[in-house]
Amino acid sequence: MAEKTFVIGADLGGTHAAAVVVDREGNIYYQYELPVDLSHCADEVFEKSIFPVIEKVIKNSPGRVSSIGMGLPGRIDSRTGICHFSPNLQWHNVPVGPKLEEKFNIPCHVMNDVTVATLGEQMFGLGKDVDNFILMAIGTGIGGGIVNEGRLVLGAIESAGEIGHMTIVPDGYLCNCGNRGCLEALCSGPNIARRYREALERGEGELAPGLDGIEEVTAGTIQRAAAAGDPLAIKIWEETGRYLGIGIANLITVLNPDRILIGGRVANALDLFLPALLNEVRFRARMVPPDFTEIKHAGLAENAGVMGGAALALSWIEKH
Amino acid sequence: MAEKTFVIGADLGGTHAAAVVVDREGNIYYQYELPVDLSHCADEVFEKSIFPVIEKVIKNSPGRVSSIGMGLPGRIDSRTGICHFSPNLQWHNVPVGPKLEEKFNIPCHVMNDVTVATLGEQMFGLGKDVDNFILMAIGTGIGGGIVNEGRLVLGAIESAGEIGHMTIVPDGYLCNCGNRGCLEALCSGPNIARRYREALERGEGELAPGLDGIEEVTAGTIQRAAAAGDPLAIKIWEETGRYLGIGIANLITVLNPDRILIGGRVANALDLFLPALLNEVRFRARMVPPDFTEIKHAGLAENAGVMGGAALALSWIEKH
Repeated sequence: MAEKTFVIGADLGGTHAAAVVVDREGNIYYQYELPVDLSHCADEVFEKSIFPVIEKVIKNSPGRVSSIGMGLPGRIDSRTGICHFSPNLQWHNVPVGPKLEEKFNIPCHVMNDVTVATLGEQMFGLGKDVDNFILMAIGTGIGGGIVNEGRLVLGAIESAGEIGHMTIVPDGYLCNCGNRGCLEALCSGPNIARRYREALERGEGELAPGLDGIEEVTAGTIQRAAAAGDPLAIKIWEETGRYLGIGIANLITVLNPDRILIGGRVANALDLFLPALLNEVRFRARMVPPDFTEIKHAGLAENAGVMGGAALALSWIEKH
Repeated sequence: MAEKTFVIGADLGGTHAAAVVVDREGNIYYQYELPVDLSHCADEVFEKSIFPVIEKVIKNSPGRVSSIGMGLPGRIDSRTGICHFSPNLQWHNVPVGPKLEEKFNIPCHVMNDVTVATLGEQMFGLGKDVDNFILMAIGTGIGGGIVNEGRLVLGAIESAGEIGHMTIVPDGYLCNCGNRGCLEALCSGPNIARRYREALERGEGELAPGLDGIEEVTAGTIQRAAAAGDPLAIKIWEETGRYLGIGIANLITVLNPDRILIGGRVANALDLFLPALLNEVRFRARMVPPDFTEIKHAGLAENAGVMGGAALALSWIEKH
């Protein structure tokens, strides 16, 4: 009988490092996570968080581990495993892949976290049954991953999929990236909260009950306020849907995917912004039949990161 | 000695049908064209224009013709060869590929004309030496073709690359497609002329010398006026560059190509709008290093259509 294949999927974020051991079908045998302290240098983050998490999961694997895949936020060259720049982790040119291989002596693969989550959707989630899809991850920022004819679209230097930095409103808000009117500057979690606060300051509504101060407002609290019927919160989510709809219509027009998956924490409020989003897409994306493109919540939710890492590890095995 | 390979590249437009016979290297041995009368039904366009053009070129081929490739404007299913809809030709569900094969008894391949021109750039033009590029064709409309890792991005129903219908100004001009603020509604030849006429009507300048009436204005006349120093014409081209720059920055952000090629008749005015375009791209496309993406005039110019058809025919031979 052929030996069963096990791989490690890992995910490094701004607050936690997590890992799972899975088989080819994506069954999870063990999972573990540890906090990350970003006041430490990269080497210490490896020693105190990344290495121990992966070590523990390898120890608890039911069989030999063939490969490790890890996603992390930032610009990564997946061929060399070097993270060239990560604003979230404050890393510059960290050789993540080589460090992992030296430590564990197992083939290791690293890629941008949203790209990795896209591979996860393709292998285990709602990208399984379509050849062309886009994952849009909306949280602190907005990232994306593109699959065309079953293959990841990475671009010339693996920077494709930065869909949060499409210009939506040419003279709009200044974005962290330096451009104006980016989708992220309008619809990331913190920027949804900003639009709500600014609307309050313009006198367009009252602070929702249950919130003590304007500085407490987050996308999560606006979600609860809208669910409880607060008119301003409802309006802000509709506006969010319209802006996201412009961006998604552009993606449909340029890439003609079968499906668009919306993930990340803000996707928890999907019911609140999907109707306005679909209206906008119907109005703007005229080059494909109406409602041709399915738009739905991503499939993997909180396990997207580690399952994506596992998909990256497995896809490497399939190629070798 | 192996028999030399010859193919036919054909192009059907709103005014002419054209064809060439070329070898694998793209050397043209014969070319011919005939006018197209669109007041006739599709069958007559085949009998009076398409068939005679291709027939004549086959007769003048130095050797046996292995394959025919043709581009035409509209939505085409390249697997079946059916043109589902062409607004320019006013065709619905015309089986172009099957008609050609029946007539000539040679394998025939048809695709959207801009997609075909993209293949032409990849095989014979400025897409030869890069893996990731986008062709933007600006004329009566704005179309596009996308190559990622050496492969055409066609999308789920071959509608990818409709870059003229990205929203650039959410509340902008109504576009022929039904959306507002499309790139095409701002920067196609006729819409460049419209912006100039509207600026005249607002009193922002004088009709350029040499133009008898406002209805005479075309992108071509505004190009000559700008070249002669007319301030309003110069301003309109700068504005054109800024709008195109927003669209191109979005494409760079989403797809990270090595190069963007600008073709079509409006590209003849490239010198007039490129500086403003590059400024806009530098401001907006922050996710790749500044000036990483080369932006230049397409390589094939007036032969783009037929050479694209030839590239389509040759790429089919390579696959079989």
